[in-house]
Amino acid sequence: MTVQRILIVSGTHGNEINPIWAVKHFNNEENTLKYGIEYEYIIGNPAAYEKGCRYIDVDLNRSFKESKNYDQYENNFYEVNRAKFLVDQFGINGSKPCQIAIDLHTTTANMGTSIVMYGRRVKDFCLAALLQNKFGLPIYLHEKDKAQSGFLVEAWPCGLVIEIGSVAQNFYDPKIINRFLIIISSLRDEIDKLKKNLIELPKEVVVYVHQGSIDYPRDKKGDIYGLIHPKRINKDWKLIKKGDPLFLDSQGITHRYDGDQLIWPVFIGEVAYKEKKIAMSFTKKEVICSHNQWVKELESL
Amino acid sequence: MTVQRILIVSGTHGNEINPIWAVKHFNNEENTLKYGIEYEYIIGNPAAYEKGCRYIDVDLNRSFKESKNYDQYENNFYEVNRAKFLVDQFGINGSKPCQIAIDLHTTTANMGTSIVMYGRRVKDFCLAALLQNKFGLPIYLHEKDKAQSGFLVEAWPCGLVIEIGSVAQNFYDPKIINRFLIIISSLRDEIDKLKKNLIELPKEVVVYVHQGSIDYPRDKKGDIYGLIHPKRINKDWKLIKKGDPLFLDSQGITHRYDGDQLIWPVFIGEVAYKEKKIAMSFTKKEVICSHNQWVKELESL
Repeated sequence: MTVQRILIVSGTHGNEINPIWAVKHFNNEENTLKYGIEYEYIIGNPAAYEKGCRYIDVDLNRSFKESKNYDQYENNFYEVNRAKFLVDQFGINGSKPCQIAIDLHTTTANMGTSIVMYGRRVKDFCLAALLQNKFGLPIYLHEKDKAQSGFLVEAWPCGLVIEIGSVAQNFYDPKIINRFLIIISSLRDEIDKLKKNLIELPKEVVVYVHQGSIDYPRDKKGDIYGLIHPKRINKDWKLIKKGDPLFLDSQGITHRYDGDQLIWPVFIGEVAYKEKKIAMSFTKKEVICSHNQWVKELESL
Repeated sequence: MTVQRILIVSGTHGNEINPIWAVKHFNNEENTLKYGIEYEYIIGNPAAYEKGCRYIDVDLNRSFKESKNYDQYENNFYEVNRAKFLVDQFGINGSKPCQIAIDLHTTTANMGTSIVMYGRRVKDFCLAALLQNKFGLPIYLHEKDKAQSGFLVEAWPCGLVIEIGSVAQNFYDPKIINRFLIIISSLRDEIDKLKKNLIELPKEVVVYVHQGSIDYPRDKKGDIYGLIHPKRINKDWKLIKKGDPLFLDSQGITHRYDGDQLIWPVFIGEVAYKEKKIAMSFTKKEVICSHNQWVKELESL
């Protein structure tokens, strides 16, 4: 297997500070080349972290598109340049090439510890399956969403987001930090096993596949007039069916889910998504059989 | 009694959005002049609310100082002008004079529902005692802190802050909204009783008196290198004594409280106070006997 360097990014959003703190622990360690694997720990958006905000100009985690997608104006954005720098430095053809990127995030939604995948890359499935097998973590598979693109991990041949919540922006929470410490350690263990050919792939992997997002009820001026319903708040990953409450508006009227499909909502009430007009995202559950080929692909990175 | 108009301010900090939502409920009501009392509901910092941040230029809730305290540069700050506008409009000598100001805040600290008083004004004691008697709410008495001044309610003859947490900035939480609805309703009930001479003042009031604030452990560059200890986080209002843990630093070393006095910490880990170099504030408990004079003073406002 040829994985030689793995990029661990924290603070891609400057106000998600718990993973930054967790990563210090590993960064302080003597970075011995155990099984020939080197880890690069980096703060994704140091300028936003310094200011305590999500980003300076635009969301860094939507700024990893091909250059042709940015106009002259956008090319001056701090995050667009930062994305270029990260790829030039740590991309697969960069000066310190990394084969895998792990991007550590927190959410204000009650998601617990979860994995986010972007599209159906076999190598990502392999890594996600290993972590799911170890901890039973839910996996959110984000795909076919034209409104959302340019995610960091997509710029690497293999990569996952680790998303942990609920925690407030800019609030240090020892429980959340501890969960990141466990995940990073486990990920390193799994990579070591891969190197030693000791991987045990589970037979199947369960994913929550993105179906779309819905916005809050808004008035003609665009102002929110309904909030997440008290019965829906903090109920991420919990099945809902036709007629279940979604929002409660300022007139006391309940807005209900009226689709026929069973769905599992995620990112319910995520603070940072209000500006993206997302109150929650809908997913459906899918079971995917694993293949030994996944391990070979991950090994051959 | 001469109280005729009461100012209820929400969104003094633009990212504390739950009271803004709660207040809509009362604002939507037909504002009948029950017992001759009128309520003015206003968003303290609409520009910051619009942007989803705490403030534009400076903290509005530190901007209610006398004009002579601001230089020419500061006089251009949005919040300094906003404070002047609020006093000109709703101050005791304003165009719509209010005798009492209630300022609704949220905190990321685990304070529950609490009252904040600034100094020992008899009228404030009376109002705080009534609310404490009804709900058993803790009262934080802020005084003798030169580093912190210019609070909104100080610009009115009588005023309290209602502080509810924990809740993330910009996160709508139905539980928190509900707590504000209850408090605002109860406050109106108490004011009605005052008007009808039905006030029952408790014999005593318990306050947590501000003793000082402490900062996070910081390195020479000013960067935080120790976080609130896992045994201290979310333990607002809980007694600590010499030797109890305060912080856990990045080297795994526990920093302990080494004072001789028993103290009750509050605002533990409040996100917005990091920039003020406050990790938590220390208080001591004090029991104050109430006097019928308090009611007379409140009535004579």
